[in-house]
Amino acid sequence: MPNLQLDCETVRKVLTGFIDNEVRKAGFHRVVVGLSGGLDSALSAYLAAEALGPEGVWAIRMPYRTSSPESAAHAAMVVQALGIHSLTIEITPMVDAYFAIFPDADQIRRGNKMARERMTILFDHSARLGALVLGTSNKTELLLGYGTLHGDMASAVNPLGDLYKTQVRQLSRHLGIPAEIVEKHPSADLWEGQTDEAELGFTYEEVDKVLCRLVDQRWEVNDLIAEGRFDETFLRAVVRRIQTSQYKRRLPVIAKISSRTIDRDFRYARDWGR
Amino acid sequence: MPNLQLDCETVRKVLTGFIDNEVRKAGFHRVVVGLSGGLDSALSAYLAAEALGPEGVWAIRMPYRTSSPESAAHAAMVVQALGIHSLTIEITPMVDAYFAIFPDADQIRRGNKMARERMTILFDHSARLGALVLGTSNKTELLLGYGTLHGDMASAVNPLGDLYKTQVRQLSRHLGIPAEIVEKHPSADLWEGQTDEAELGFTYEEVDKVLCRLVDQRWEVNDLIAEGRFDETFLRAVVRRIQTSQYKRRLPVIAKISSRTIDRDFRYARDWGR
Repeated sequence: MPNLQLDCETVRKVLTGFIDNEVRKAGFHRVVVGLSGGLDSALSAYLAAEALGPEGVWAIRMPYRTSSPESAAHAAMVVQALGIHSLTIEITPMVDAYFAIFPDADQIRRGNKMARERMTILFDHSARLGALVLGTSNKTELLLGYGTLHGDMASAVNPLGDLYKTQVRQLSRHLGIPAEIVEKHPSADLWEGQTDEAELGFTYEEVDKVLCRLVDQRWEVNDLIAEGRFDETFLRAVVRRIQTSQYKRRLPVIAKISSRTIDRDFRYARDWGR
Repeated sequence: MPNLQLDCETVRKVLTGFIDNEVRKAGFHRVVVGLSGGLDSALSAYLAAEALGPEGVWAIRMPYRTSSPESAAHAAMVVQALGIHSLTIEITPMVDAYFAIFPDADQIRRGNKMARERMTILFDHSARLGALVLGTSNKTELLLGYGTLHGDMASAVNPLGDLYKTQVRQLSRHLGIPAEIVEKHPSADLWEGQTDEAELGFTYEEVDKVLCRLVDQRWEVNDLIAEGRFDETFLRAVVRRIQTSQYKRRLPVIAKISSRTIDRDFRYARDWGR
């Protein structure tokens, strides 16, 4: 039965092998990663530095004027520990130029615009440095849709997308990521005092247990309710989040006209001799 | 045998039905579309106005300071003909704020950043207006990778993705889109005098014939060469473009760890009772 406990040493080998293989297969030998100061991007950077060597990793710091100084300190700690390249590009001028037109925009719109501005910078640096964009979205975030489509959810290769947040923590401890980073409250750092768990309304510990049962162990919702371990309202809210965020995990829907439609009947490069 | 000749009246019905169905299924009744002044976005807007009524279509004009006045005039023509909502947001301040940091960036990097800035504005307006982002990428562009990933290739629903460029023209004539827009040279309008065909090195007429054989009729490249109708260097260049742009038509690659990985074993909302 799949559970949340990782065999950390095996997973470390699988993920460093994955990064090495995907990057070289695409004809590259470098990655670029947005280093927020949080745990997910720290773990991606650690895995990439092990896979490609520190000279193969470019960490881009992209703070906004309200980003916390603690985030900057934690990102600097990662850069220092790994000896990877780093670069800081403030997103404040671009973001503020836009919201000068829409001064009444709420925090959600602002947060999404910031996440997408960072994506544009990472993909620009993909071209500038000849490096693939390394993803940092974990399985919990992806399933809950707790991320920005074409923002932090965008990447070329993502080593973390099949690890729940609590598994990200396990592996991070195993790799020796500084405890300040592993143990702090996860936050998108979009406004002061923001934490993921306050915004979501539940803890990662709790939701990961539910997601593992629903997705990996293929429980039916009614069986989970019957188990009596989790609050029914909470369970239904989780299922609803998975359902309503499905669009964030797929490609644009193309109207089918021909007998061979992109992403429907025409999908794989192996159709084309590679 | 599939060919490039459309049954325009049937396709019109399929595509307006597709827009209506996809938009309402997602719980919306409006779309937002980036109106460049070019033919693809004009056709998307025409189809959406027919599907949802003009009050259901928001056209966003997002010119850069070098965008041609002709593009603005053609976009205005579409807005006027359809009676749809429209809004103009200059991308110059945001784009110039970024390239102030990288003054030596080439045209490709600038063009991609502009396309992605426009994406961020469309998705922000998706949230602001409660409207789905309508796609404008055609099948020729998608297969050749002639577009920006997380830029103009990003949308929620795309009515044009299974129509070759020459089919976009056929349908546009059928719908009565003004001849100035249908017959002009297609251009990304990123610099003065730019045309798609000069940049690609071949015409849409020619490449669509090749793509239809390769993709829809499933010819082997060697049979196309043996046919003697197309230049071999051209044919091989087209196949190479399809191969090397495959990454633009798929989701980020996630490292597989669990028995049920997003976009591999866990894909469909129908797994979840909808």
